[in-house]
Amino acid sequence: MIQFDSTHAFLKEDILSYQDKVNQCHEALMSKTGAGNDYLGWVEWPYQYDKEEFERILKVAENVKDKAEVLLVCGIGGSYLGARAAIEMIQGLYPKNKTEVIFIGNTFSSTYFKQVEDYIKDKSVVLNVISKSGTTTETAMAFRMLKQIMEKKYGKEECKVRIIATTDKARGTLKDLATKEGYETFVIPDDIGGRYSVITAVGLLPLAIMGIDINSIMQGTQKAYEDLKDSSLTTNAAYQYAVCRRILQNQGKDAEMLVTYEPQMSMVAEWWKQLFGESEGKDGLGVLPCSATFSTDLHSLGQFIQEGKKVLFETLLLVEHPTMDGLFPHDDDNMDNMNYLENKSLDWVNKMACKGTLEAHEITGNVPNLILTLPDMKEFTFGYMCYFFFRACAITCYLLDINPFNQPGVEVYKKNMFRLLGKD
Amino acid sequence: MIQFDSTHAFLKEDILSYQDKVNQCHEALMSKTGAGNDYLGWVEWPYQYDKEEFERILKVAENVKDKAEVLLVCGIGGSYLGARAAIEMIQGLYPKNKTEVIFIGNTFSSTYFKQVEDYIKDKSVVLNVISKSGTTTETAMAFRMLKQIMEKKYGKEECKVRIIATTDKARGTLKDLATKEGYETFVIPDDIGGRYSVITAVGLLPLAIMGIDINSIMQGTQKAYEDLKDSSLTTNAAYQYAVCRRILQNQGKDAEMLVTYEPQMSMVAEWWKQLFGESEGKDGLGVLPCSATFSTDLHSLGQFIQEGKKVLFETLLLVEHPTMDGLFPHDDDNMDNMNYLENKSLDWVNKMACKGTLEAHEITGNVPNLILTLPDMKEFTFGYMCYFFFRACAITCYLLDINPFNQPGVEVYKKNMFRLLGKD
Repeated sequence: MIQFDSTHAFLKEDILSYQDKVNQCHEALMSKTGAGNDYLGWVEWPYQYDKEEFERILKVAENVKDKAEVLLVCGIGGSYLGARAAIEMIQGLYPKNKTEVIFIGNTFSSTYFKQVEDYIKDKSVVLNVISKSGTTTETAMAFRMLKQIMEKKYGKEECKVRIIATTDKARGTLKDLATKEGYETFVIPDDIGGRYSVITAVGLLPLAIMGIDINSIMQGTQKAYEDLKDSSLTTNAAYQYAVCRRILQNQGKDAEMLVTYEPQMSMVAEWWKQLFGESEGKDGLGVLPCSATFSTDLHSLGQFIQEGKKVLFETLLLVEHPTMDGLFPHDDDNMDNMNYLENKSLDWVNKMACKGTLEAHEITGNVPNLILTLPDMKEFTFGYMCYFFFRACAITCYLLDINPFNQPGVEVYKKNMFRLLGKD
Repeated sequence: MIQFDSTHAFLKEDILSYQDKVNQCHEALMSKTGAGNDYLGWVEWPYQYDKEEFERILKVAENVKDKAEVLLVCGIGGSYLGARAAIEMIQGLYPKNKTEVIFIGNTFSSTYFKQVEDYIKDKSVVLNVISKSGTTTETAMAFRMLKQIMEKKYGKEECKVRIIATTDKARGTLKDLATKEGYETFVIPDDIGGRYSVITAVGLLPLAIMGIDINSIMQGTQKAYEDLKDSSLTTNAAYQYAVCRRILQNQGKDAEMLVTYEPQMSMVAEWWKQLFGESEGKDGLGVLPCSATFSTDLHSLGQFIQEGKKVLFETLLLVEHPTMDGLFPHDDDNMDNMNYLENKSLDWVNKMACKGTLEAHEITGNVPNLILTLPDMKEFTFGYMCYFFFRACAITCYLLDINPFNQPGVEVYKKNMFRLLGKD
């Protein structure tokens, strides 16, 4: 499903020389004996997910779909990026869709909130608030304001249908509030961290409301589970990728640029940045995750990659079959001299741009390139890709002796902020 | 107008020790004796811009405004990023605006093009194509297809009003085509490179069509020109910033993360990446430009910044006065425990998040922070900020003995691509 190619990466170590260490990491992951083993719920999730809840997601989505001219998804971090990445990848940036999704509760920006408030004034709105505890400040603030706006507009009774909470299964301020107000609730599992949560109700509910086939997503995760069962570095592409990241950082490459050739994949890159940056960026270690969308950014970052300081490697996340395509048309006048592309498919040109760029960056620019190729941008592939990156991320962190599942550094700014806000 | 603060950056060299070198760079810039001196048209542009053309921009914008349910801006690199950065910064992400702007011709993605084609089918469209030569492949391909679509929809006669070309003043395929078809044309000056072009017709025409006050933008550039006349490092904030970038790279920081606290500023960061990355990333030198929008990305990249490998410094691009604000409301139940923020302005909370994060990254994380503070996100400030960064970029490159105005590395992938496309 995902093809991995490391032949353009100037690797100075043999991938296979990591087999013993990878076997240990794999064993630690599967036997739940490694660091962060309280957060391994995602490993077996492709099969172990709550089937009853899944059916309820489909039912609730069906019920509210027609009420949602705008779907507000109120969450931050893993409660924001996964759903956004999936919706953009699968539906594209200008979809024919009667539901528009707006992400909120992911910023303190007053202008952003107030503009959205104005924007939704005369639109029919459904709100999915997503927070494990209910105390994440960005999300809690936005939710209080949106709840008041919606209660004023629809009344408390109708809000029982229009507001849905995804939260802890038993406790926390959001769970208590949802129970009191009578909102439908879905569960953020205790043993799945935010950046691994897109394949739970956190991601699946908004996706289902947007009309995305979440069954197919789960099937994709199952296929990935099967394909990545064996830790052999001759066959396990996720583990090959995990090892290559370590080899390239050993070679002095402290930044990884995830490169896509589809604008609708740029939020996947943001989601990937959280997954890898938050999992790996601790103990003074890890690779700085950054991203670019080509060919667009060849006209901005391209110069630096080609001829600037050699600090980074690229990981290309390519797509074999685009969602839509067309043929480049003939023009009688040919004043633009573009007839040489007549009847070529647009995607073929994109592929040639990619090939030419790889050659330029690799051979002339001496920049290592790893290549991951997805078959398409559909649901099944999205699910597969998520699980692929989960596995790769866990192993690449274990190879550094890092706990991939905590994020102690995120608390520091919060502590300072709470002091400044005068929170007890 | 822009306040600069380097007191959180752990500088190991004295900024003022660079004064002599900066004076030389400034002199090279102003007397046009430095590298790349064919591309210094932007330096005096705040006063020297073509006033007649400026009036024509306003007139044409007024004429087509009502026809533009959708404004298509067809261009890439500097013919894309500046206008997008300005529109988002000034109008926000969910503006009350009857004109919607869609950027196109900035990608080879077939899905992107085809989705936009469908999306605009029943909408009233105005097209501004922007290309110096008319041969940039992404833009030329999109333009041929859009031209055919619009001619079919409106007829050739009406297209004379609805299609506007910004291009070379005298020659090139786009200029010739525009002359033949009878399109209105505006000029990309010979001596202003793409990444410096947002304050020319390249940026100003789409902005004017979107209803943005371009007079105020030009006044902002004039104010910046005056404020940055003197090369003294005790007063010139742009040059201070230019020097600090060099000092921090000398200290081993090979990546700069431009951080904003407003989602509507994230495209300014993309524009900034082109300006600095393309100007500086050559001869194996330069700082890798990357970006983040906080607090959103504190929940993704925050962990890496706080505790990961110490490869980067942050440049905060802050905004003193948000475009919109509101007070956080009271709630009788207070089940979310958020009443402690009752009657606080939303922006105040954003400011406290910023302050707490700065402290966390600086003191606990040991990450150098530079701070640039803008008064607001209005037109005047946008113009000022552009010119500020232009000056800073030129000087920071001259300090490295780099030509800030060429981009030889961008040609490499094009050459390979043309060979693969079978172009003669």
